Amino acid sequence: MKKFDVVVIGGSAAGIAAAITCRRHYPNKSILIIRKEDQVPIPCGIPYIYGTLGGPEKNLMPDASLQNNQIELLVGIVAEIDRAGKTVGMEDGERVVYDKLVLAAGSEPIILPIPGVDKDNVFAVHKNVPYLKKLLDKVNSSSDIVVVGGGFIGVEFADECNKGRDVKISIVEMLPRCLMLAFDDELCETAEGIQRESGIDILTSEKVVEFTGDGAVSGVRLDSDKQLRADMVILGIGAVANTELAKNAGLELGPTRGVKVNRYMRTNDEHIFACGDCAEKFSFFDGAPSGLKLASEATKEARIAGANLFSTRRMNCGVIGVFSTALGETAFAHAGLSQRCAIDKGYDVVIGEAQAPNRHPGGMPGMAPMKVKLVFERGTGIILGGQTMGAKSGGELINAISACIHQRMTADDIAMFPMGTHPALTASPIVYQLTNAAEMAIKAVSMSRI
Amino acid sequence: MKKFDVVVIGGSAAGIAAAITCRRHYPNKSILIIRKEDQVPIPCGIPYIYGTLGGPEKNLMPDASLQNNQIELLVGIVAEIDRAGKTVGMEDGERVVYDKLVLAAGSEPIILPIPGVDKDNVFAVHKNVPYLKKLLDKVNSSSDIVVVGGGFIGVEFADECNKGRDVKISIVEMLPRCLMLAFDDELCETAEGIQRESGIDILTSEKVVEFTGDGAVSGVRLDSDKQLRADMVILGIGAVANTELAKNAGLELGPTRGVKVNRYMRTNDEHIFACGDCAEKFSFFDGAPSGLKLASEATKEARIAGANLFSTRRMNCGVIGVFSTALGETAFAHAGLSQRCAIDKGYDVVIGEAQAPNRHPGGMPGMAPMKVKLVFERGTGIILGGQTMGAKSGGELINAISACIHQRMTADDIAMFPMGTHPALTASPIVYQLTNAAEMAIKAVSMSRI
Repeated sequence: MKKFDVVVIGGSAAGIAAAITCRRHYPNKSILIIRKEDQVPIPCGIPYIYGTLGGPEKNLMPDASLQNNQIELLVGIVAEIDRAGKTVGMEDGERVVYDKLVLAAGSEPIILPIPGVDKDNVFAVHKNVPYLKKLLDKVNSSSDIVVVGGGFIGVEFADECNKGRDVKISIVEMLPRCLMLAFDDELCETAEGIQRESGIDILTSEKVVEFTGDGAVSGVRLDSDKQLRADMVILGIGAVANTELAKNAGLELGPTRGVKVNRYMRTNDEHIFACGDCAEKFSFFDGAPSGLKLASEATKEARIAGANLFSTRRMNCGVIGVFSTALGETAFAHAGLSQRCAIDKGYDVVIGEAQAPNRHPGGMPGMAPMKVKLVFERGTGIILGGQTMGAKSGGELINAISACIHQRMTADDIAMFPMGTHPALTASPIVYQLTNAAEMAIKAVSMSRI
Repeated sequence: MKKFDVVVIGGSAAGIAAAITCRRHYPNKSILIIRKEDQVPIPCGIPYIYGTLGGPEKNLMPDASLQNNQIELLVGIVAEIDRAGKTVGMEDGERVVYDKLVLAAGSEPIILPIPGVDKDNVFAVHKNVPYLKKLLDKVNSSSDIVVVGGGFIGVEFADECNKGRDVKISIVEMLPRCLMLAFDDELCETAEGIQRESGIDILTSEKVVEFTGDGAVSGVRLDSDKQLRADMVILGIGAVANTELAKNAGLELGPTRGVKVNRYMRTNDEHIFACGDCAEKFSFFDGAPSGLKLASEATKEARIAGANLFSTRRMNCGVIGVFSTALGETAFAHAGLSQRCAIDKGYDVVIGEAQAPNRHPGGMPGMAPMKVKLVFERGTGIILGGQTMGAKSGGELINAISACIHQRMTADDIAMFPMGTHPALTASPIVYQLTNAAEMAIKAVSMSRI
């Protein structure tokens, strides 16, 4: 029987990051990753297979990081966890002994029980290379594609499938706007505008009631009774934690049905940790359960779990929720609570917004406008959230905003932010979006007192 | 006699930001900016006049922000400040009464008393449009240009003058490397390499002893006795605070000869504030006097001064020192203490470094490598500094690092940084440079304990 100090179940973002972190903190431990896939797709890169990248083989996690960190790999399916014996049983009968076990089993796409969902050519986004290849073949041979769900996955899939193809794409979203769980209205509207301009049809406040067709899907019926032609359907309506193994092993689950963990990423078995999409999460702001599934959050949790395996070193602050996307040349990014979400949570908010070119003067090459919106709690001035829209460097600026949120900085702190600026890289220091958005919130408060 | 609640002397970055901040915090105050220039060049954009932009008229501060904020403008030269009478006297005899005065008089380029420095075609970087135009005409008619000083200004000037011209450019730097006061050796070496590859001659550990020629400069003699041909010379060796008015008015100066201010940016006259290049500064780290002159720092100080004019609201944390530049497609950025500088200040440091593409997978468009180096204090793990090299989004990532420094985050805090990532915008979450550089520092410490 093979024996390892650490066994990690799952070889995607959380599993790899947990194993590498363990190696860095505990140089002498033996580490095994067990994964079911021969090749692992980069999760956030999956939509880009269908346009920018051109194939699933161009979107693979490199295994070099495992070899470089002396992490062994076993490809196979785990059948069960024997907590009493501290072993993992594989489907083929092999058993592996562990001292510490990390569950990084990820998530599976949600498949709603809509009539006809089991028809051919109705695809979910399974993180599986042969399946994603099949999906690509079908995209290439389709004239009408219906994407169900206007969240990140749905919007990115629609945008990518539209690239270089003569194809009619429709997005069906239940909520009044696409990306509504992520962004405030003005960002959603801009994103929808970009998509519509590129020819994508967006149907919001619409629900799918049936996938029609003989054997293979040929149409989608909405509850408004609209009918859409469809050679294929792509479901992008979220994901659920993979908890089968954990449940069968008697591990507790949390309120969003993820594996329950404490702030050290430990389950109710002191030798078993969980992190990433399969693990239960809570909000940084109010501790409320969170179902958010992000690769970046997964690796953050993995860096906590991996460091805590043999000695408690790190504590989880909860989910701030930092994410970004790009449609054409326009980047959208978000951290913390949107204005809508903050109000829903009962905060009295003040908003500050600032827009400026990301170069100075504006004639410098690479100029793109960028807007920053910040959300503050009125009484304390503490930042609750931020959004950027425009230049691609927003993908990094959102991380400066994330640091401000994490450190509970106030609008005044941010107005005095010790930023660096440069003509070829950022906005001018006078109009720098982050500091000026904070100032505009302060101004709004002082004007309201007059 | 004209009368204003607030008079600001100086119409560049600090002056404008102080006036706008005052307007935001004190909506009903009357504000006047007095500046000596008809048109104000964007200070950091000046080198880009000579290549990318093509002329000083393309690098001007827009006056619209003054009009939009009901800030009046007077163009003229201030002759004296009468503190007892709380008035400013203009050269033409006009007097302006103030309640609060902000000195944002900026700096002048250093001109060392090297023999021949007064010859024709030896230029300093005066922030003055007609002068900068004359400098451009001379660049356009020169075959041999010698840049004295290999700091930011010198390196950027050399790079820009080299664009689209058949010209021989040499940089003479006293220190062993260009940009040495900003970056650690590996960044300096990369920057020098890019410059040399573009044909620029770099002479380090060399001092100018004489500018030769009859009337106009025709050569530069170094203390190694090397002779360089020169149709023109550009001096980029730093700047000194403009303190003439302040000194004459009996305001105290600080150890680096800037106008002495307290943490609220107030001078020893309670009605007079100073900010930007003319004001004395101190280090965020140890409170030591700092002579650093940056437009971003200037606006930070201006946002403190402007907010404090009628009610003390903000306190200066000192200079962290955040700056960036780009040579070709490679951006270089720095925040806080370099490794060299931290050691000089007596810190026992630990270094963490991580490099990764700024996209994932690497096949995504816009991919550029980016390296992050972080400097930590060994005992506490608190971050002291950071540098980025590579992708242009480093210009914003350095601001996330600045937030980490400002908040005195530890390597463990940063390893758990709640970052957002996206295939089209950043590195993958597994190899994200900021978190991984922190992990590498932690690994270095744990390895040293084995």
